[in-house]
Amino acid sequence: MRDVSIADVGKRLLIGRKLRSTQLGETLLPKRIALPVFASDALSSVAYAPDEILITLSLAGASGFAFSWKIGIVVAFVMTVVVMSYRQNVHAYPSGGGDYEVATVNLGPNAGLTVASALMVDYVLTVAVSISSGVQNAEAAFPFLDGHEALVAVLVVLLLMTMNLRGVRESGTIFAVPTYCFMFGVLAMTAWGLFRILVLRTHLQAATAHWSVVGDPKYTGLTGLAMIPLLARAFSSGSAALTGVEAISNGVPAFRKPKSKNAATTLALLATIAVSMMIGVTVLGRLTGLKLVDPGFSHFVLNGRPVHEEADTAIGQLAAAVFNNFQPGFYFVIGATMLILFLAGNTAFNGFPVLGSILGRDGYLPRQLHTRGDRLAYSNGILLLAAGAIVLIIAFDASVTALIQLYVVGVFVSFTTSQIGMVRHWTRLLRDQHDRRARNRMFRARVINTVGAVCTGTVLIIVLLSKFLQGAYIAIIAMIVLFLLMKAIRRHYDAVARETAIDPTEDKMLPSRVRAVVLVSKLHKPTLRALAFAKASRPSTLEAITVDVDPDETERLVQQWEDAGIAVPLKVIASPYREITNPALEFVRSIRRESPRDVVTVYIPEYIVGRWWEQLLHNQSALRLKTRLLFTPGVMVTSVPFLLQSSTAGERRLARSDRRSRATVR
Amino acid sequence: MRDVSIADVGKRLLIGRKLRSTQLGETLLPKRIALPVFASDALSSVAYAPDEILITLSLAGASGFAFSWKIGIVVAFVMTVVVMSYRQNVHAYPSGGGDYEVATVNLGPNAGLTVASALMVDYVLTVAVSISSGVQNAEAAFPFLDGHEALVAVLVVLLLMTMNLRGVRESGTIFAVPTYCFMFGVLAMTAWGLFRILVLRTHLQAATAHWSVVGDPKYTGLTGLAMIPLLARAFSSGSAALTGVEAISNGVPAFRKPKSKNAATTLALLATIAVSMMIGVTVLGRLTGLKLVDPGFSHFVLNGRPVHEEADTAIGQLAAAVFNNFQPGFYFVIGATMLILFLAGNTAFNGFPVLGSILGRDGYLPRQLHTRGDRLAYSNGILLLAAGAIVLIIAFDASVTALIQLYVVGVFVSFTTSQIGMVRHWTRLLRDQHDRRARNRMFRARVINTVGAVCTGTVLIIVLLSKFLQGAYIAIIAMIVLFLLMKAIRRHYDAVARETAIDPTEDKMLPSRVRAVVLVSKLHKPTLRALAFAKASRPSTLEAITVDVDPDETERLVQQWEDAGIAVPLKVIASPYREITNPALEFVRSIRRESPRDVVTVYIPEYIVGRWWEQLLHNQSALRLKTRLLFTPGVMVTSVPFLLQSSTAGERRLARSDRRSRATVR
Repeated sequence: MRDVSIADVGKRLLIGRKLRSTQLGETLLPKRIALPVFASDALSSVAYAPDEILITLSLAGASGFAFSWKIGIVVAFVMTVVVMSYRQNVHAYPSGGGDYEVATVNLGPNAGLTVASALMVDYVLTVAVSISSGVQNAEAAFPFLDGHEALVAVLVVLLLMTMNLRGVRESGTIFAVPTYCFMFGVLAMTAWGLFRILVLRTHLQAATAHWSVVGDPKYTGLTGLAMIPLLARAFSSGSAALTGVEAISNGVPAFRKPKSKNAATTLALLATIAVSMMIGVTVLGRLTGLKLVDPGFSHFVLNGRPVHEEADTAIGQLAAAVFNNFQPGFYFVIGATMLILFLAGNTAFNGFPVLGSILGRDGYLPRQLHTRGDRLAYSNGILLLAAGAIVLIIAFDASVTALIQLYVVGVFVSFTTSQIGMVRHWTRLLRDQHDRRARNRMFRARVINTVGAVCTGTVLIIVLLSKFLQGAYIAIIAMIVLFLLMKAIRRHYDAVARETAIDPTEDKMLPSRVRAVVLVSKLHKPTLRALAFAKASRPSTLEAITVDVDPDETERLVQQWEDAGIAVPLKVIASPYREITNPALEFVRSIRRESPRDVVTVYIPEYIVGRWWEQLLHNQSALRLKTRLLFTPGVMVTSVPFLLQSSTAGERRLARSDRRSRATVR
Repeated sequence: MRDVSIADVGKRLLIGRKLRSTQLGETLLPKRIALPVFASDALSSVAYAPDEILITLSLAGASGFAFSWKIGIVVAFVMTVVVMSYRQNVHAYPSGGGDYEVATVNLGPNAGLTVASALMVDYVLTVAVSISSGVQNAEAAFPFLDGHEALVAVLVVLLLMTMNLRGVRESGTIFAVPTYCFMFGVLAMTAWGLFRILVLRTHLQAATAHWSVVGDPKYTGLTGLAMIPLLARAFSSGSAALTGVEAISNGVPAFRKPKSKNAATTLALLATIAVSMMIGVTVLGRLTGLKLVDPGFSHFVLNGRPVHEEADTAIGQLAAAVFNNFQPGFYFVIGATMLILFLAGNTAFNGFPVLGSILGRDGYLPRQLHTRGDRLAYSNGILLLAAGAIVLIIAFDASVTALIQLYVVGVFVSFTTSQIGMVRHWTRLLRDQHDRRARNRMFRARVINTVGAVCTGTVLIIVLLSKFLQGAYIAIIAMIVLFLLMKAIRRHYDAVARETAIDPTEDKMLPSRVRAVVLVSKLHKPTLRALAFAKASRPSTLEAITVDVDPDETERLVQQWEDAGIAVPLKVIASPYREITNPALEFVRSIRRESPRDVVTVYIPEYIVGRWWEQLLHNQSALRLKTRLLFTPGVMVTSVPFLLQSSTAGERRLARSDRRSRATVR
C-alpha cells in the first residue's frame, strides 16, 4: 500500500483541480484507500447521530423512543438522496468541483461565498463536535474521564493543533486503519448482536434497559401532530450523520481511472456502509432497550427514584451489551470509535487551510494564503481553527447535544446551494445539447439533483425551524460575519487592482537621476559597508547624514569621520526634539523638493542578529524611519545588512521553519 | 506664573545634565514653583507614613501607641540627616547628578546599576502605594468606595496610563496647586486642632478614640528589649516618609541662580515642612486618641465586642475630628490628600521613561529608549509601569500596609549607595585639594555624608531585617532580576560594538559591481515603478524574476510582459513546492556564487496602505522574503514603495503619533 499524503488529498478535496506536480500519477488512489481517506468524516458521524436522535426523543419520555427507528430510516433516506445527487456532481465535475466552485460557477460569487462561509463555520464545528464525541465515547472504556470532558477535549484539540503546527505528515494508512476498524467493529457488533438476539435467543440488555425515562413535561404524553416539532428536532440532530458525505465528490481527481465511475462507486459504497451502520445501531439499540436522556430536560428513574449515574453513548452501551462475554471486542469498538472521531477532527485541520488557500486565490482572504510558502499564514489558520473549537468546547462544556444544535446548518446550506447549482448546470447544458441520448441522461441527472435540492432544502428549513433558537442562530451569525468580512476583503483587493492597473496612455516618465543618502549613527563596519554598497551603485550624488540627537556623540562622530578620511561628506542634521525620524524625513523631502524628477535612495545599515530578543535591542529607530520613508513619494529604502555572528542561528531557524512549512503545506 | 513642563523637569530630575536647548533660560524655576514640583512625592508620603507606624504598633495592643511619637521623632531625625546629606550632593553635583550618576562615577558601574534597579522597582511601587493610599484616603469622604479599593486603584492607574500614553502635558501649576493645598490643609488642620485642644480646651476625639485595640498575642504585653523588633518594623514602615526626598538634589539645574544655594534652601524648606507635618499628624493623633489596626493581626473592640467597621486613615480621622464644626475644611483636606497622592503616582509615569532614557544611553536598556523619537519605546515604558503597578495592586488588594513592606528597601538602597559614593567623592577631592579653607569645608561635607551613609545604611539593615520575610524579598528579587537583565543587555551591546569596530589594518575591498534583481508577481504600476527605479540606478546587470507558484498565472504574466514590450528580461523560477521564498533566495545566492565580488540588490515593489488591517492583506510574502534575504551575505534589499490612496491616512496617523511623542518625551 503506497503512502498518500493526506495534505495532498485534502487539497484535492477542495481545490478540485488537477495537480501540476509531475508525480501526480503515483498518488492516485485505488478505491480501497480512497474510501477510508474520504469517508472518515462521514462515517464518524454514525458515532453520534443515533445518540442525538434518542436524546431528543427522550424529551417525550419513554414513549418517544418508539420513533427512533422511523427517524433513523428517514435520515437514511435523505442520505441516499444526497449521495445520489452527489453522484451527479461527480460525473458533471470530474475535475472535482467543490461545493464552493459548483455554487460560484452556476449561481455566482455570492452563492459561492455563502457556501465558503458555511464550510468555514462547519470546519470549526467539526473539530468541536468530533472531539467532544470522541471523548464521550471513550468514557465507556475509561470512566475516570467522566466530568472532565471539556478539559480532555481541549487537550485533544491542542494535541491536534500542535501536530499540525509542527507539520507531522500522515499517510493514507493512518486514515485507513481506524476507518476500517471502525466500519468492521460497528458492523461486526451489529451482526453479532443480532445473531445473539435473533438466533441464539440471548436476552441482551443495554445498561439503561431497566431504567425508565421521565421526559420534559412540555412533550410528555403528546401524540399525533403535536409530536411533529419534537420529531423534526430529532430528525435535524440525526441528520448530522450526513456531514462529510460531499467529501468524495470533491476528490474525484485523486481517483484512479475511470475517475468519475470509481468515485461514484465509492460514493455508493460509502452510502451503503453508513446507512447500514446507522440502521444497525438504531435497530440494535431498540432491541436491547437502549435509552439516552438530555440532562437538561429529561432524566432516568429506577423504582421511582432518579438515577444520578450518567449513561454511556449508544455505541458504548451496545458494545458493552453485545460483547458482555468478550471484553476485547468491547475495547476494540470503543477504541476505533474514539480514533475515527479524532481523525475526523483532524481532517478539518487539513481542510481549513486548503479552503483558505482557494479563498485567498479568489481574493476573499489574504492572498498569501494561496501562495503557501508563508508558514505564518498557514499556522494562523490552524491556530484560528483550534481557538474557535476550544471556545465552542468550553462554552458548551463539550456537550455534543448542545454543539449539534449549531452544526448541520452549515452542511445543509452548502448541500442545498450546491444542488441548486447543479440544477442550473444541467439546465445550461441542456440548452446546447441536441443529442437525444445525452439529453435524456442530463434530464435524468437534473431530476435527481432537483430532488436532492428539494430534499436538502426541506431539511435545511426543518433544521432552521427546529434549531434556530437552540443555538443555530450562533452559527448563522458567524456565517454572516464571515461572508461580510470576505466581501470587504475582496472589495479592497479590487480597489487596489484598479488603482495599480497599468494605464497605457499614461506617459512613463523615467526618473532622471538617483540621489543616494546613507544614514549614519556611528562609524563602524555596518556604516562602512552601507557606504561601500551605496558607492558601488554609482548614484548621481552621495551624501552621508547623521541626526544630531546628542551633541557630544555627534562631535565625536564628525571627528572620527574626518580622521578616517572618508571621501563622502557627512551632513549633520539638527534635531531640536532629540529624535531621529522627523529631521531625517524632512531632509529627504527637501532633496525631492529641489529636484522632483530624481529618485532618492536611502541606505540604512542594519544589524542582523539571530535571536528575537536581540532584534529588540537594535534597528528600532531605523525601523521607524523606514516605515515613514516608505510613505514618502519618490523614495526607495535600501537595507544594507550587516550580519553579526549570532545571525547564523537566526538564518538556520528561518530556513528550518520554511522547510517545515514546505513539508506541511505543499 | 510661567508654565513649566513636568516632563522637562522630570528629565532633569534624573538626567542631571544641562539641557542643550536654547530656551533653557525660560524654564528655570523660582523656589516657590520648584518646591511643589519636586516635593509632591516626598510630601505625599506624609499621608501614609504615620498610618503605617500606628498600624504596626497596634500589634502590641493599646499600649503600643504610646511609642508613636517617639518613632515619629526618629523618622524626623533620619529625614533631617538625609536632607543634610543631600544638601552636600547639591553642592557637589550642581549639574544635578542623580543617585545613579553619583554611584556610577564614584563607585563604578555595578553600584550605579544597583541604584538603577532599585529606582525602577521603586517607581512601580510608588505608583502602587500612592494610588492605593489615595483611594484609601478618599474613603473618608466617599464611604461607598469601601471594599472596592483595588478596583478603583486599578482604574486610577489606567487613567494615568491613558493620560500619559496620549501625551497630556501638565504644567507646573498643576503640581503647585494640590501640593500647596495639601501643605496648607494639613498644617492648618494641625494648627487649628492644637488650638482647639490646647487653647479652647475643646475635647476633640478621633472616631476610633473610644474603641480599644486587641493586638497580636505575639506582641501584646511585651516591654523593654522585647519590643525592639516591633518598634524596628514600625520605624521601617514610617521611614516611607523619606521617599522622594532625593528629588530636589537631582533637579539643581532647573533652579534659578545661584542654583546650588537655592536648591539647598528649598531642600531645607522641604525637610522643615515634611517634618512639621509628620510630627503634627502624629501629635494630633495622640491627643485625639487616634487608633489604627492591621486587619490581619489586630482588631478593634468596643465594650468587649469586636468592631466590624473599618477605620479611616489618620488624616481622614483627624480632619473629621478637627473640622467637626466645619465640613468644607474636612473635604478640602481629604481632596488635597487624594490629589497629591495621585500626582505622586503620576510623577513615576514621567520619571520611569526618563530613567529608561539614561539607561538606554549607557547601553543597559535598548538604545532607542535614549533617542526618544520612537514613541513606541516610550509607550512600552508606560505600559510596563502601569502593568507592574496593577499586578501589585491586585496581588496585595490595594493594601498600603502590605505594599509598604516591599517599598522603602529600594529607596534606602539608593540613599545608602549614593551617600557612600559622596564619601568617596570628597575623599578623592581632598587628595588634590591643598587650600586649607576648602579642605575644611570638604572635610565637614565628608563627615555629614558619612553620617548620612551610616544612618541610611543602618535604616537599610533595619528595613531588611524587619521586612525581608514580610515582602521585601519580592522587591529584592525584582531588583536582582533587573540588575542581571541590564548587565546582559550591556554585555550584548559590548559584544556587538567589538564585532562591528573598524579594524584599520583590514583591507577595504569595495564591491566591484552591482547586479540588480527586480521581484515581480504581477505586471502593474508597482512593478513598473520598481523597474524604473532599478533602471535609474544603472546596475551592471538587471533582471526581473518571478516565482512560478501558479503556472496559469505565470503564463499570463509572461504574455503580458511580452505584449508590454518591456526591455528587461523576465526570468521564471520554478517552485516545486509552490512557495516563493526558497526559490527566490536560491536564485539570488546563485548570482553571488557566480561572482562573489559583486553586490546583489533585490528590488521589491511594496504596496503602501494606510490601515493596519490592509497591511495584513499585502506584502506578506515579500516581507518573508525580505527577512530571509537580509540574512544572505552581500545582498541589499531595496523596497520600492507604491503609495495607494489610503496611504495618506496612514502617513497622517504616523506623523501625528510622532508629533505626539515629540510633545510628550522631549
